[in-house]
Amino acid sequence: MSYPGVPYLVKLNSKSHLVKTAQDDPVSLQWFELDQVMDFKENSGLNILGVGYTVYLGSEYETDMLLQAAQIVYNAHLNGLVTVLWMYPRGKAVKEEKDPHLIAGAAGTAACLGTDFAKVNYPKKEGAESKEIFKEAILAAGRTKVVCAGGSSETVPAFLQQLHDQIHVSGAAGNATGRNIHQKSLSEAIRMCNAVYAITMEDASAEEALKIYNG
Amino acid sequence: MSYPGVPYLVKLNSKSHLVKTAQDDPVSLQWFELDQVMDFKENSGLNILGVGYTVYLGSEYETDMLLQAAQIVYNAHLNGLVTVLWMYPRGKAVKEEKDPHLIAGAAGTAACLGTDFAKVNYPKKEGAESKEIFKEAILAAGRTKVVCAGGSSETVPAFLQQLHDQIHVSGAAGNATGRNIHQKSLSEAIRMCNAVYAITMEDASAEEALKIYNG
Amino acid sequence: MSYPGVPYLVKLNSKSHLVKTAQDDPVSLQWFELDQVMDFKENSGLNILGVGYTVYLGSEYETDMLLQAAQIVYNAHLNGLVTVLWMYPRGKAVKEEKDPHLIAGAAGTAACLGTDFAKVNYPKKEGAESKEIFKEAILAAGRTKVVCAGGSSETVPAFLQQLHDQIHVSGAAGNATGRNIHQKSLSEAIRMCNAVYAITMEDASAEEALKIYNG
Amino acid sequence: MSYPGVPYLVKLNSKSHLVKTAQDDPVSLQWFELDQVMDFKENSGLNILGVGYTVYLGSEYETDMLLQAAQIVYNAHLNGLVTVLWMYPRGKAVKEEKDPHLIAGAAGTAACLGTDFAKVNYPKKEGAESKEIFKEAILAAGRTKVVCAGGSSETVPAFLQQLHDQIHVSGAAGNATGRNIHQKSLSEAIRMCNAVYAITMEDASAEEALKIYNG
Amino acid sequence: MSYPGVPYLVKLNSKSHLVKTAQDDPVSLQWFELDQVMDFKENSGLNILGVGYTVYLGSEYETDMLLQAAQIVYNAHLNGLVTVLWMYPRGKAVKEEKDPHLIAGAAGTAACLGTDFAKVNYPKKEGAESKEIFKEAILAAGRTKVVCAGGSSETVPAFLQQLHDQIHVSGAAGNATGRNIHQKSLSEAIRMCNAVYAITMEDASAEEALKIYNG
Repeated sequence: MSYPGVPYLVKLNSKSHLVKTAQDDPVSLQWFELDQVMDFKENSGLNILGVGYTVYLGSEYETDMLLQAAQIVYNAHLNGLVTVLWMYPRGKAVKEEKDPHLIAGAAGTAACLGTDFAKVNYPKKEGAESKEIFKEAILAAGRTKVVCAGGSSETVPAFLQQLHDQIHVSGAAGNATGRNIHQKSLSEAIRMCNAVYAITMEDASAEEALKIYNG
Repeated sequence: MSYPGVPYLVKLNSKSHLVKTAQDDPVSLQWFELDQVMDFKENSGLNILGVGYTVYLGSEYETDMLLQAAQIVYNAHLNGLVTVLWMYPRGKAVKEEKDPHLIAGAAGTAACLGTDFAKVNYPKKEGAESKEIFKEAILAAGRTKVVCAGGSSETVPAFLQQLHDQIHVSGAAGNATGRNIHQKSLSEAIRMCNAVYAITMEDASAEEALKIYNG
Repeated sequence: MSYPGVPYLVKLNSKSHLVKTAQDDPVSLQWFELDQVMDFKENSGLNILGVGYTVYLGSEYETDMLLQAAQIVYNAHLNGLVTVLWMYPRGKAVKEEKDPHLIAGAAGTAACLGTDFAKVNYPKKEGAESKEIFKEAILAAGRTKVVCAGGSSETVPAFLQQLHDQIHVSGAAGNATGRNIHQKSLSEAIRMCNAVYAITMEDASAEEALKIYNG
Repeated sequence: MSYPGVPYLVKLNSKSHLVKTAQDDPVSLQWFELDQVMDFKENSGLNILGVGYTVYLGSEYETDMLLQAAQIVYNAHLNGLVTVLWMYPRGKAVKEEKDPHLIAGAAGTAACLGTDFAKVNYPKKEGAESKEIFKEAILAAGRTKVVCAGGSSETVPAFLQQLHDQIHVSGAAGNATGRNIHQKSLSEAIRMCNAVYAITMEDASAEEALKIYNG
Repeated sequence: MSYPGVPYLVKLNSKSHLVKTAQDDPVSLQWFELDQVMDFKENSGLNILGVGYTVYLGSEYETDMLLQAAQIVYNAHLNGLVTVLWMYPRGKAVKEEKDPHLIAGAAGTAACLGTDFAKVNYPKKEGAESKEIFKEAILAAGRTKVVCAGGSSETVPAFLQQLHDQIHVSGAAGNATGRNIHQKSLSEAIRMCNAVYAITMEDASAEEALKIYNG
């Protein structure tokens, strides 16, 4: 409530990471109904523009999450909200979470669910450049826009170069940066946001963005 | 929304194929309610004529899918929609998915569920001709019409001959071709559609259809 | 819809027999609600007089089926429908499905559920006559009437004798014959129906009924 | 319906005893809603004064039964019905079903659920008198009244002595006798009821009650 | 009902401790809906100010409890009730229930759920002072206030010192004392309450509080 002007996306499910896949496949179910989000938006006056939901494709509980995702996208669009689906292949059946075909399949599934955005992991494959193999996911997503999870913290230059490649080489529609901002001091975080903004919205190169970060 | 004139069938459930039967029996639950489909039809103006749903007979979760299928057929018919049930015997209990008696049983179950169409796999049995042993399923389905899944891509002549046999020898009511069209170039796909149409709707022979495909 | 004059009983659950008890205990859940049956009766004009439901007593899923059975009997009676419960002890916990005490227990459970009719298997026990040991189930059922499942096809004389014994020795209220009719030619099936009718409704002996069957 | 004047308690769940704890933990879910009981009471004119429900504490399905019990007590009291909870510790986690502390815990749980009565097993412990160790459960139950399950049939003098001890030594509020009445002839059962009544309502000694039983 | 003036917090779930984690992960589901609590508050006239609910983070059933917790907080706040979430990491995946980072994570999860208060265990770590490592949880909880579970009974001086440290060193917002009061005589319990009050509300030292306890 301290930041009423910020545009919000309400994440509708979440889980701890205590239970590992070796013990049980991942599942995370919906906490709030769409009409509760709409009531909260009206009552709070917060600038809520969208909702998000994670689907663990390949989990033994996949079907429960797919149907909640389908309902969320359907109802969010009826209410004028943007949707983002976190599409993460995960579970005992998933050997390589960052396999480019698997990530493309996840992006394609997001498109089938009708979401505006899919958030996926940046693919990795030995002997291939991520920025090239990521194009398959962009293509598979059709009209659904794709953004990458930020992943664990890296060096700032490497992070900015990767972000630039995702957007300006692979064709991602933006970014979903978390820990690379949250795990910095406030001053660094603000400069990081500005650097990210420059790449995403103003076509800055990684080098230009780094200058912004360095102040 | 780009093809408002095309007649649509809305598939109401789906799953990834990441979890194999050896790990867990297949289950795929309903994503949308019938009244959501009807609302969407009215709001979108799309030409939605039917709904589809997959039942994995022989899965440990069979009962969940059978009851959803029963409800979908009942409600679709109240709303004037045609129904197609994908009837696939699958699970640890199913040793031979293409056994002709099993497929006939699946077709008969579809009839019990009251669906207009059942989509089944084309049976296979050593020493028997598929087009002959498939007749058992057509018979078991009674007034429910039967169509075959297209299966994996084959050579075009083999595919067209098989399609012809299913319809004009076994008595199938049509076909459900996917990958044999989608995995071709646009030009080939259009000619394949025309060839399929000729066999299905105009009683063309496989040879005549092949000429159409070859342009 | 071809036989609008026939009195119908709508079976409200069913399952395939692909998953054996050794793999998982049996479960079969309700496909239609009572008010859907009543709507269908009114809309179709069919002569629907009753509903049926199978309970697998001794299954690990028994509790799910018991509560659906209770609800079905309650709501059917509110709507003026007759109820038949198929009461089959089955599951890993059930060693002898035809044990006379177990079948009597199933009949007694049916009475607790308030059903009009219970359909049970004809008990078998080495050194005992089925027609005698079946009396325990008739007694346990109290005011609930008991009918026997027809079982697999037998010779016609044996079948008719058994039917006669169930009704006129043990005290069954009728019969539930399926495969012994369905697996015959139309002409034989009609004569079999007449023979069954003679025993059930007209106190014919097995020999008299056999003459009817033989035409 | 033959005994409209008898005060009834409607038991809302039940199960067979076919599945043993070694195979799966016990679960028994609610068959009827409270408003169905109230409708039935009004429609039937039967003298329904209360409802009952069994909770298997220590079962892996305990949480399902606890929440149904809580709802039943809440709704029954809103409708002016008395409640009895059968509180039975049972499941793989329960080694000694008749441990006095465990039974006291079950009685205390019943009190937390707000029920009027808890039905528990009479505790047993080597070297201790049941009538003494049972006092712990009476105390733990607070304002909830406690009655004992009758248990398997015993000799009449032993049964009556035990009943007397439960009520007049331990402080039980009454008794819940079943098999010790049902498994007798009608004449013996009536005399047993009179004997039980004398102990429970008229402070008769076990010897006086035995005289009543012996006629 | 004997204490109408006391402010009450209604705990909405609970379980026995019979099933240990080695057998099955912990789960405890909601017994009453928020509108039932509100109806009860109005009908009883009791001074109900809040509701509580336990979440076992790291349990295989975590997702069921997280969504109930989210709904409870949302609906409680709509109804003007304060919320307390018992946040206990527990299950086969949790090796050290009192690990300070884990408890901080639990407190942070409580903040994500929007609860007013989180009740957590006091962290323990070899070579570290609990009052110091507990600060991480206070920080992680943000605007959610944190209180500690009282734990098993200890000596009075040790208990009071610990309570003082939690509140006045670590920054806890109060305390949730149970067994250290309930397992004392009435007179001791009242003096203990006064001692706890002095520390919590009047900034008394542990020594001053002990004097109050000693009367």
